[in-house]
Amino acid sequence: MNTTQQNKRIETDSMGEIEVPADRYWGAQTQRSLIYFSIGHDFIPQEVIEAFGLIKKAAALTNAELGKLPEEKAQLIAQAATEIADGKLEDHFPLRVWMTGSGTQANMNVNEVIANRAIELAGGVRGSKDPIHPNDHVNLSQSSNDTFPTAMHIASAKAIQTRLLPQVQKLRDALYRKAEEFEGIVKIGRTHLQDAVPLTLGQEFSGYVAQLDDDLKRIETALPGLYELAIGGTAVGTGLNAPPQFSERVSAYLSEFTSLPFVPASNKFAALAAHDGMVMASGTLRVLACSLMKIANDIRWLSSGPRCGLGELLLPANEPGSSIMPGKVNPTQCEAITMIAAQVMGNDTAIGIAGSQGNLELNVFKPMLVFNLLHSVILLTDGCHNFTRFLVEGLKANRAQIARYVNQSLMLVTALTPEIGYDQAAKVAHYALDKEVSLKQACLDLKILSAEKFDSIVQPAKLAHPFE
Amino acid sequence: MNTTQQNKRIETDSMGEIEVPADRYWGAQTQRSLIYFSIGHDFIPQEVIEAFGLIKKAAALTNAELGKLPEEKAQLIAQAATEIADGKLEDHFPLRVWMTGSGTQANMNVNEVIANRAIELAGGVRGSKDPIHPNDHVNLSQSSNDTFPTAMHIASAKAIQTRLLPQVQKLRDALYRKAEEFEGIVKIGRTHLQDAVPLTLGQEFSGYVAQLDDDLKRIETALPGLYELAIGGTAVGTGLNAPPQFSERVSAYLSEFTSLPFVPASNKFAALAAHDGMVMASGTLRVLACSLMKIANDIRWLSSGPRCGLGELLLPANEPGSSIMPGKVNPTQCEAITMIAAQVMGNDTAIGIAGSQGNLELNVFKPMLVFNLLHSVILLTDGCHNFTRFLVEGLKANRAQIARYVNQSLMLVTALTPEIGYDQAAKVAHYALDKEVSLKQACLDLKILSAEKFDSIVQPAKLAHPFE
Amino acid sequence: MNTTQQNKRIETDSMGEIEVPADRYWGAQTQRSLIYFSIGHDFIPQEVIEAFGLIKKAAALTNAELGKLPEEKAQLIAQAATEIADGKLEDHFPLRVWMTGSGTQANMNVNEVIANRAIELAGGVRGSKDPIHPNDHVNLSQSSNDTFPTAMHIASAKAIQTRLLPQVQKLRDALYRKAEEFEGIVKIGRTHLQDAVPLTLGQEFSGYVAQLDDDLKRIETALPGLYELAIGGTAVGTGLNAPPQFSERVSAYLSEFTSLPFVPASNKFAALAAHDGMVMASGTLRVLACSLMKIANDIRWLSSGPRCGLGELLLPANEPGSSIMPGKVNPTQCEAITMIAAQVMGNDTAIGIAGSQGNLELNVFKPMLVFNLLHSVILLTDGCHNFTRFLVEGLKANRAQIARYVNQSLMLVTALTPEIGYDQAAKVAHYALDKEVSLKQACLDLKILSAEKFDSIVQPAKLAHPFE
Amino acid sequence: MNTTQQNKRIETDSMGEIEVPADRYWGAQTQRSLIYFSIGHDFIPQEVIEAFGLIKKAAALTNAELGKLPEEKAQLIAQAATEIADGKLEDHFPLRVWMTGSGTQANMNVNEVIANRAIELAGGVRGSKDPIHPNDHVNLSQSSNDTFPTAMHIASAKAIQTRLLPQVQKLRDALYRKAEEFEGIVKIGRTHLQDAVPLTLGQEFSGYVAQLDDDLKRIETALPGLYELAIGGTAVGTGLNAPPQFSERVSAYLSEFTSLPFVPASNKFAALAAHDGMVMASGTLRVLACSLMKIANDIRWLSSGPRCGLGELLLPANEPGSSIMPGKVNPTQCEAITMIAAQVMGNDTAIGIAGSQGNLELNVFKPMLVFNLLHSVILLTDGCHNFTRFLVEGLKANRAQIARYVNQSLMLVTALTPEIGYDQAAKVAHYALDKEVSLKQACLDLKILSAEKFDSIVQPAKLAHPFE
Repeated sequence: MNTTQQNKRIETDSMGEIEVPADRYWGAQTQRSLIYFSIGHDFIPQEVIEAFGLIKKAAALTNAELGKLPEEKAQLIAQAATEIADGKLEDHFPLRVWMTGSGTQANMNVNEVIANRAIELAGGVRGSKDPIHPNDHVNLSQSSNDTFPTAMHIASAKAIQTRLLPQVQKLRDALYRKAEEFEGIVKIGRTHLQDAVPLTLGQEFSGYVAQLDDDLKRIETALPGLYELAIGGTAVGTGLNAPPQFSERVSAYLSEFTSLPFVPASNKFAALAAHDGMVMASGTLRVLACSLMKIANDIRWLSSGPRCGLGELLLPANEPGSSIMPGKVNPTQCEAITMIAAQVMGNDTAIGIAGSQGNLELNVFKPMLVFNLLHSVILLTDGCHNFTRFLVEGLKANRAQIARYVNQSLMLVTALTPEIGYDQAAKVAHYALDKEVSLKQACLDLKILSAEKFDSIVQPAKLAHPFE
Repeated sequence: MNTTQQNKRIETDSMGEIEVPADRYWGAQTQRSLIYFSIGHDFIPQEVIEAFGLIKKAAALTNAELGKLPEEKAQLIAQAATEIADGKLEDHFPLRVWMTGSGTQANMNVNEVIANRAIELAGGVRGSKDPIHPNDHVNLSQSSNDTFPTAMHIASAKAIQTRLLPQVQKLRDALYRKAEEFEGIVKIGRTHLQDAVPLTLGQEFSGYVAQLDDDLKRIETALPGLYELAIGGTAVGTGLNAPPQFSERVSAYLSEFTSLPFVPASNKFAALAAHDGMVMASGTLRVLACSLMKIANDIRWLSSGPRCGLGELLLPANEPGSSIMPGKVNPTQCEAITMIAAQVMGNDTAIGIAGSQGNLELNVFKPMLVFNLLHSVILLTDGCHNFTRFLVEGLKANRAQIARYVNQSLMLVTALTPEIGYDQAAKVAHYALDKEVSLKQACLDLKILSAEKFDSIVQPAKLAHPFE
Repeated sequence: MNTTQQNKRIETDSMGEIEVPADRYWGAQTQRSLIYFSIGHDFIPQEVIEAFGLIKKAAALTNAELGKLPEEKAQLIAQAATEIADGKLEDHFPLRVWMTGSGTQANMNVNEVIANRAIELAGGVRGSKDPIHPNDHVNLSQSSNDTFPTAMHIASAKAIQTRLLPQVQKLRDALYRKAEEFEGIVKIGRTHLQDAVPLTLGQEFSGYVAQLDDDLKRIETALPGLYELAIGGTAVGTGLNAPPQFSERVSAYLSEFTSLPFVPASNKFAALAAHDGMVMASGTLRVLACSLMKIANDIRWLSSGPRCGLGELLLPANEPGSSIMPGKVNPTQCEAITMIAAQVMGNDTAIGIAGSQGNLELNVFKPMLVFNLLHSVILLTDGCHNFTRFLVEGLKANRAQIARYVNQSLMLVTALTPEIGYDQAAKVAHYALDKEVSLKQACLDLKILSAEKFDSIVQPAKLAHPFE
Repeated sequence: MNTTQQNKRIETDSMGEIEVPADRYWGAQTQRSLIYFSIGHDFIPQEVIEAFGLIKKAAALTNAELGKLPEEKAQLIAQAATEIADGKLEDHFPLRVWMTGSGTQANMNVNEVIANRAIELAGGVRGSKDPIHPNDHVNLSQSSNDTFPTAMHIASAKAIQTRLLPQVQKLRDALYRKAEEFEGIVKIGRTHLQDAVPLTLGQEFSGYVAQLDDDLKRIETALPGLYELAIGGTAVGTGLNAPPQFSERVSAYLSEFTSLPFVPASNKFAALAAHDGMVMASGTLRVLACSLMKIANDIRWLSSGPRCGLGELLLPANEPGSSIMPGKVNPTQCEAITMIAAQVMGNDTAIGIAGSQGNLELNVFKPMLVFNLLHSVILLTDGCHNFTRFLVEGLKANRAQIARYVNQSLMLVTALTPEIGYDQAAKVAHYALDKEVSLKQACLDLKILSAEKFDSIVQPAKLAHPFE
């Protein structure tokens, strides 16, 4: 027996025998999938694998309670499944996204790993399917067609609820603190990118806060759809081969395990054949992406410079800028977040197309749907975290530059009209533009107003707060 | 004076004089826009023009109440604006979507038409700006930057609420009636397009009903965002030049006029500079499009045939099919609705990109945003209406064909396993496949079960309703 | 007989009689389509109708030559078809895009109008189908399945070749002239929006020229795909019921009529069942849209101001800017073009989805495919034209502002390093930043270099042209 | 000194000191990037890293030739760079995609690894920057702004040319062999999914071959754009700090190394600031995705069954289907490829958005652009390979089923018309439909034709080949 053979063991399925690596828990169907679906480098997301761990545990306990599975087997399955849910068996899930569109091989990978791990716990022989059979026991009362979409929803809802929303909230809070910090800083407004009437930098940032406040609400509207689980629908939605109460009980367990309000899907046929809930969720993430694109673009333009840009904001210097060129700090965090925004928009297109392509009793774009949604969630989560910590928190206003713009802006001429009349005001503005001087200087040059009078009339802060 | 000159009149703006057609109410800025923005054939949607009519009326009444406009002028403006809101002056709005991104020319078109129509009502001379000036009176306390997004929200919310949702509801109800009608029809399920265990045709249709039920809810989650109005923000969001209470009072009028719960936007800076609410709304329409793509695809596949397709459904024959070929009815309504679905998905991409591109105090993709959203709303509205009336309502089950599939399917062999054991069942299935006979015939040929026994065991309806 | 009846006539098809407006040439099938496809406001584009005119003429002449149609009938059809191709019968094509996905009703609309117009020319009675029958004569040797995609390709190729490409070329030429005009103007470069080493404004514009040069080539790569015509494939691609040589001869006529090199599609099955050539064409338009988005964004940022933006470019003032605020000119043409770019990107998504959805012998998204492609072509055509004429041609450099940035930029310090060493150079830059003075002033203040020496070393033009 | 400290070493950059893992070649800037850009799980693709290896080697050799770098240093750099290009130092490139949009940290990662590896080869001390400095020597005459887009183009062109195109060709060839194999098999055509006139299965497959033939050509039109390299443009496109001839010589080396015709970009400003060439390339991949979606959808529908679907094709059984249900083989390879198609369409949207967002001298979406393009290329490459090998090559026609459809189809009635006249033919068709018999049986029942006569007239093969 040579070394290679020593490191292999034989597993079997309905197609016969196949060698698998001796140190892996997976079985024949997983091994075959490695051959037939050797496509790219995208793996079934760990979040989905962990959700499967929870499902298999919940199913085993429920099957035992409903008298379909001996208590002993259920406990073995639950123990192995818990290890998966806890992320302890990561190395045993080698399958890629680009497989059967129902995720069957991913479900079988979980069934096989649990079976062999449970067999090991019971002192049995890996591959023996005794005392735990991947289909007859681990997959009991289930189908790939209902477990995979259940795992999709659990993984997505959990990632959104426990990872994304808190980071969006933190970004919102950091921007809110900046809005407060910048409250008194009057600056020139810009519409069509052209100089406009003033507002405060705090008001400008309050707009970002409002966008994120609404994004939080919008994303939350998508969660109820994800809380509905397909489990119990089995192969086509009728629940054939699942006992009555299976759907309710498994959902209750999953709620308990995750502290999220999972319930059985109100219609199991739709839950297998369509994924509108995933499309909706992606759509709300897309709105967040649009908000972030706007906010990050604003910040990078406002911090453009140091000498030849708008220069109203000062970015924290994280990386080496130019060693010889003080003041040059690239808006690298803005760039990361805008790239993420574009990616999320692309993922959203992919999700929409895939979501529209269900046929009859099954939508067979399941693995790529959850892959894209989690991709978006994770990028947005980490992106918001880094953007908050490495950019927003360190952001400073360049008060001198902001004041300079306000002073040299011609838009403030509107404040003079009530005092000196439209014609005189226009004359002042034209003079200022032609001579390249400030409005104040123009008034002095033209002997229209004294400096004191000008200052008493032209108060940008009043223009920014007309109702105060 | 020649004929051409007789049909023109002179209008003026800050750039000077320009000829306009004598029989049109618009003025100089509209006329200039016809030159500078002579792009394509997409006009500012009539829904937006009508919303502007409501806004101008509400603004005039509010300005009068707040002492900024003489009551008489307000009444003249309100009367002309009402005519616009009622769709009576359609021919006076010739501008196309591809203009300034703030919609300034569209706002000015409205201001100019109202001014000249009001002047006419007052017995004045068109173009005289007396007694009603398009800027000083009609646009008083407003800016394009806040009125245009206000019109976007009013037009979109109204179209969704009063046009789209009722038609989606009707389609849902028609499908629900079909689900009831088809309740007892047991048919073969298909997953991966392959024969699977049975369900009823009613259950299959219940999935469509569930999708639309959820679509209705999803679209409704987008409405609160559209009910928030930018009005009162004026040029940059500070409300400069608008009196206190303007935003609240105008919003209240608009609620009254439309019976929709419009309110002032909680943050006016975001309301001008971002259009996340529009992106969200489009995202929910996109989910509806995905649902409709799935439903229409199912129906066209299920009605494929008459002899060489699945043939489980019979479509109503609206148009001439083949005159010599009875039974050939093309699923033309399905095709219209799937084309619409693809269009809505494309519009949604356009809206997402545009929505992400705001800069500083203004997003300048406003006209194309509302153009695309209304395009989607109207196509979905009319599409659902026709799909309901000309397809779903006339849909019939081909009971003979459905029964034939159930009888010849090999999937029912699973029902035999408890009685004859796995090995015998597999033998029956293989025999049936090889000999091209039914399972029942296979049992008889192999002398495994009598016809009576077979029928007593293999009851597809039980497989479709495992819990009854 | 009442008035209404007097204005109607009876037309018939295989479903029976139906009233049509007496003054319209269309027949029963068109009239039915008005009922069943009363969806939205998008009409079958006039370009498609005109292409159909050419096809019907070419088919009639070919049918006559091949002995399938009497010469007399062919001439009548050709005459009526020519009127359609010349745009003379526009009012007789009332159908909307959202119909059968094969465009059958659009084809029948053409057949019916030609038949009735030809009957009229022959002195016959409208609706009599004598001497010209819409199916038997006008549609002879054809099917909707091959004529509609033929019309799609003719309309698209013609619009691209004769309308779009010349306008893109004109825009390219206008930018090229600006690149030449701006050749000697040294300006500060900006990467990551941050000040960088200098280049000339002419170099910056040369980048835009290069993008459009490549766009022209890219769009041309899509034309061969559009020059392949489905005609002759009839219902499923086999050419059943079309005589041999029909495809070649009709294509030759169409080449002659249009001066474009149309040929029979090399594979007729693909030509009916897929529209990859349309997807490719849209993809190349999308690249143009991306180029235009970049160019227009650059121009609007570079012209931001007048006092509080970058202000390096001066836009032509087309519309009234602020009457009191000299110098404020909104980049409205840039906004129109960026809206168009976003629309083209959305249309492209719609086209890609539709193009992927063919089934078996037919793709049934034909009308919306050509609708979207022509929408993109027309918007880009008109958009480029207006952008050229109303923006690029009138663009001026703000030389004073550009020079000011160059002088105050700290990036030029790199030029000092060879002369004064890295440490001194860094000292100068830091001093300049801290004291808010120019590099030159910093050198003088720190007594590091004389003004003459500084000027002899720091020559931005050399930095912009390092190889000269 | 504790264990942890023993496993670290100190690296420095302009921001100061930082600890890096002792066994890694990377330096301070890479280490900082690990902190600031800890986003998601997407790594800079290995293909880009290897392209960078080639670039750095070419640059070092060129710098030496042009007298800017001592030969000895150049050789050290070239040796280390070659190791990277050969994929030997994979573990030293830990950075993720979501970083600075210029890819600066990725470039610095390469510079640092090469420097430390070269130092090691020279017997020096890691982190000492002696004798090889990451900036002064490895990055000499270069900038991230020109090297990163150069690496993007090399990686993309190489992957398309050497990986994707051969696999598409193989798929095309496999489909071509099937088209030949299926040449004589007459089958019913289906348009609108409804029974239509016949064609051969070989003709149907010839359509797929034609699509892929054109896809190969289309993708090739995108390669010239990718062969243009930004190298030599340095920071803003002017080539500042690069010697004359640098661009040409480095490009020549890169051509030599890769056997691909790389050339200097004709305009370096566009090469840094826009990525239209990448957008174009993605667009052509998108067309391939649309083709594959169509082909895979056709195959999975044609193989639907075994008893209740179309059942015209028999799929190879790769994985266990149902153990008890013979004949049930899921179209899993089709599902993988349609998921890939949807992903490529999503990636394409992301690429289009990113490609449109360049500003002034730089587009800062570079890492995500190349990430998405390579993602698409690799998925399509592997997908085509598996689809060819595990699906197309094993595909069989179900001749019995195909013949059955042809025989029972009513469409063949059209062949009877010349013999028995329209009215009799229609009568036959109606009788066949009503009585659920074949056309032949109907003729016999109605005593219209003898069996022999019927068979002599109704020859489906003639209908499929009307011109033979």
